[in-house]
Amino acid sequence: MAEEEVYRASTYAPVNIAVIKYWGKRDTKLNLPTNSSLSVTLSQDDLRTHTTASCSAQLSKDTLLLNGEGQDISSTRTQACLRELRSLRQQLEAKHATAPKLSQMKLKIVSENNFPTAAGLASSAAGFAALVRAVADLYQLPASPTELSRIARQGSGSACRSLFGGYAGWQMGEKDDGSDSVAYEVAPASHWPAMRAIILVASAEKKDVSSTAGMQQTVATSALFQHRANNVVPKRMNMMEKAMKERDFETFATLTMKDSNNFHACCLDTEPPIFYMNETSRAAVRMCEAINKEAGRSICAYTFDAGPNAVVYYLKDDESSVVGTFKSMLGEKTGWEGPRGQAIKALQKTPEGVEIISEMLKKGVSRIILTGVGDGPRSTNDHLC
Amino acid sequence: MAEEEVYRASTYAPVNIAVIKYWGKRDTKLNLPTNSSLSVTLSQDDLRTHTTASCSAQLSKDTLLLNGEGQDISSTRTQACLRELRSLRQQLEAKHATAPKLSQMKLKIVSENNFPTAAGLASSAAGFAALVRAVADLYQLPASPTELSRIARQGSGSACRSLFGGYAGWQMGEKDDGSDSVAYEVAPASHWPAMRAIILVASAEKKDVSSTAGMQQTVATSALFQHRANNVVPKRMNMMEKAMKERDFETFATLTMKDSNNFHACCLDTEPPIFYMNETSRAAVRMCEAINKEAGRSICAYTFDAGPNAVVYYLKDDESSVVGTFKSMLGEKTGWEGPRGQAIKALQKTPEGVEIISEMLKKGVSRIILTGVGDGPRSTNDHLC
Repeated sequence: MAEEEVYRASTYAPVNIAVIKYWGKRDTKLNLPTNSSLSVTLSQDDLRTHTTASCSAQLSKDTLLLNGEGQDISSTRTQACLRELRSLRQQLEAKHATAPKLSQMKLKIVSENNFPTAAGLASSAAGFAALVRAVADLYQLPASPTELSRIARQGSGSACRSLFGGYAGWQMGEKDDGSDSVAYEVAPASHWPAMRAIILVASAEKKDVSSTAGMQQTVATSALFQHRANNVVPKRMNMMEKAMKERDFETFATLTMKDSNNFHACCLDTEPPIFYMNETSRAAVRMCEAINKEAGRSICAYTFDAGPNAVVYYLKDDESSVVGTFKSMLGEKTGWEGPRGQAIKALQKTPEGVEIISEMLKKGVSRIILTGVGDGPRSTNDHLC
Repeated sequence: MAEEEVYRASTYAPVNIAVIKYWGKRDTKLNLPTNSSLSVTLSQDDLRTHTTASCSAQLSKDTLLLNGEGQDISSTRTQACLRELRSLRQQLEAKHATAPKLSQMKLKIVSENNFPTAAGLASSAAGFAALVRAVADLYQLPASPTELSRIARQGSGSACRSLFGGYAGWQMGEKDDGSDSVAYEVAPASHWPAMRAIILVASAEKKDVSSTAGMQQTVATSALFQHRANNVVPKRMNMMEKAMKERDFETFATLTMKDSNNFHACCLDTEPPIFYMNETSRAAVRMCEAINKEAGRSICAYTFDAGPNAVVYYLKDDESSVVGTFKSMLGEKTGWEGPRGQAIKALQKTPEGVEIISEMLKKGVSRIILTGVGDGPRSTNDHLC
C-alpha cells in the first residue's frame, strides 16, 4: 500500500572554515549577518555530516536524531528550515498532481558526524547543510545550491557556505527578508586543489560562550565591532576573493591570520569579554609564525573559530615543512593513522626557539585532523534509516 | 675646597596604573601619544622608586645605578631628560651668578625600587618620574609638576602621570614639539581617598613584546587601532574624568574594564598578534565578574597593562567582599604580611561556580600587593649616595 511507503534521501555535507569571519547578525531571526564572509570547504573524507531524511504517512511527528541522540526539532531555526522546504514541496505538488504528498507527512531525520561534535569544529554548519540538502533531495526540489543556502542560513548562518564546495562566499545582502543573503561559489575545489589543512584539536571542553549568544553581545557592546563590519571586512572580502581566484597563498595566508585575530579582538572587546583562544591556541599562532619565519615566506596560516582549535591552512607542496614540524612535536597524538598522516615525516630539525611553545602544544593538543579543500554536498544511497 | 663639594637631592616617586590606556605614539622620538590617557597614582608606601641625584666636579661621567646594577645612561630617552634638565639649570645659573655651576658637572644617579622590577609593574613610569624629580630638586629648578611631566614623558610616556598624585591625566597635545603633551591633575588623592587596589602578580616572566616595540607594531598594522585612538578613547576620557570628579565607582569600574579590554583587543589585532594577558589574567577577569555578580553591582574593576598582572581597583568599603574573596583562594601567597593584609578575613563563602578559575588563580598568581591611591613624588633626606 502506498500509505506504508517510506521515502528517503541521504546526503553527505562538508564542514567549512571561514577565512573572513562571520560574526554578528543584523537580524537574529533570519540569521542575516552584519558582514559578508568567505570560507574553504573541507574534504568530506575527513569531516562530514551524513544525513538521511525520510518521510512516510506512518510517522506521527517530526524527529531528529544526531549521533544516536534525539534532538529538539522544535527549535525556531530547525522549524524555519523545514517550513521553507515543505513550502517548496507544496508548490511542486501543486504543479504535479501525481507527485506524492510528502509535504503532508512527518519527517524522520537521522544524522551522524564522522568527527567529534566538539566545540568549534563547525558541526552546526555541516549539520544544517546536510539537513537542508537531504530534505531537498527527498522532496526532489529543483532548487539550486544558492536557493538552498538561503534556507540553510536560517538554521545556522555559516551552514549556507557548506552548500558549496571549494572556495565559498556568503554575501550579507541588503534586503530585510534576507532573500539576497545567500552563499555563492568563488571557485570550485578543482580551481585550487592544493589547499590543505591540519586541525589542532585543542580541547573538547565546553565553549566559553556560545557563538549565537557571543556574537550578539559583541554587536551590542563592542566599541570596535562596527568598524570591523563596516570598514575592515569589506576591503578584505575583495582582496581575499582575488587571492582565491589567483591562487595567491601569501595573500590568502596574511588575510586569513589578520581576520582571525581581528574577529577575536572584537570578542575580547565585548562586555563582558569573550575568550575563545587559550594558551594552546596562542602556542599554535607562535608555531605558525616560527614555521613561516624559517621558510622566509608565509607557507601556513592559522585561523580560529569560536573555540580554541587551530585550523592551519597550507599548500600541498609545503606539507613536509608545515605538517612535518607539527608531527615532530605531536606525533604521539591521535590522527596520524591514515595513509596521508603516515606518509608525512616528522622533521628532525624544528624552527629555532620553539621549545616552550612546542611543550605547550604537546600539553594542549588532544588530536590532529589532516584534511584539505573538498567538494560540496554529495548524495548517497547509504541510508541511516 | 668648593670643587670637592657633592650636591645631592633625593625623591620618592610613585607608580601609576592607567584606567584609560596609553598605547601608540604619533612621534616616537618625543613620546607623543596617539591618544590621551588617565591613571590612578598608587601609594608609595607600597610601590615606589627611590632616587638620589648627585653631582660634583669630581665625577668624570654620568652614571645611573638601578637596584645596584649599572644602567646604560646613554639611551636616547635618558639623555633627552638630562639634556632638558641641564638646560633649565643653565638658564638658572645665567640669571643667578652665585649659583654653583651644577650644569657643568657630571651626574651620579642611584635608584632603587621597593618592588620587583618585573614585567608590567610600571617600573619605568616611577623610574623616570623619580629621575626627573630628583635632578630637578638637585638643580633647584622652579619647574611645576606639569613642566617636569613634559620632560619625564620623553623618558617613558606614562612617567609623566607619575609626577602627580591621585587621579592624573595626560593630554595628548597637538603641537609637533610636544610642548602641550603634558600631565595634569584631575583630582588629588584626598578628593577620593577610598580607592584601593589589589595587584595579582601573575608572572615575573619576560614580556611577550616590549611595550615600546609593541605599540608601534599596533599603530602600523592594526585595522582597529585608529578607531580606538580617534573615536573610542576621546569619549571615554570625558566620562572617566567626570566619574573621578564625582567619585562614581560604578562608571569608573565599567570604563576601566572596557578600556583594558579594548587596548588588549588592539594588541591581538596587531600583526603579528601581541598577547599580554594569559590564562591567569583571564581567570582574574572571570573572578572579578563573579564578585560583581555576587554583589549585584560593580564593586571591583580589573585592568591589565602590557603584561599578565591584574590590577583590581575597589573602594575601601568593599574591601572585605573583594579582597576577602581573593584571600580565600590566595591566602598562602606572599603579600598578606603587613597590617592591611592581616586585617582582611578570607571569605568562607566564595561566589558560585568559581572553582576552576579559583584553581587557575592559585596556580598562576605568584604574589599579591595591597595598595591604594596615593600622593605624587616626595622629597626625602634619605640619600642613596
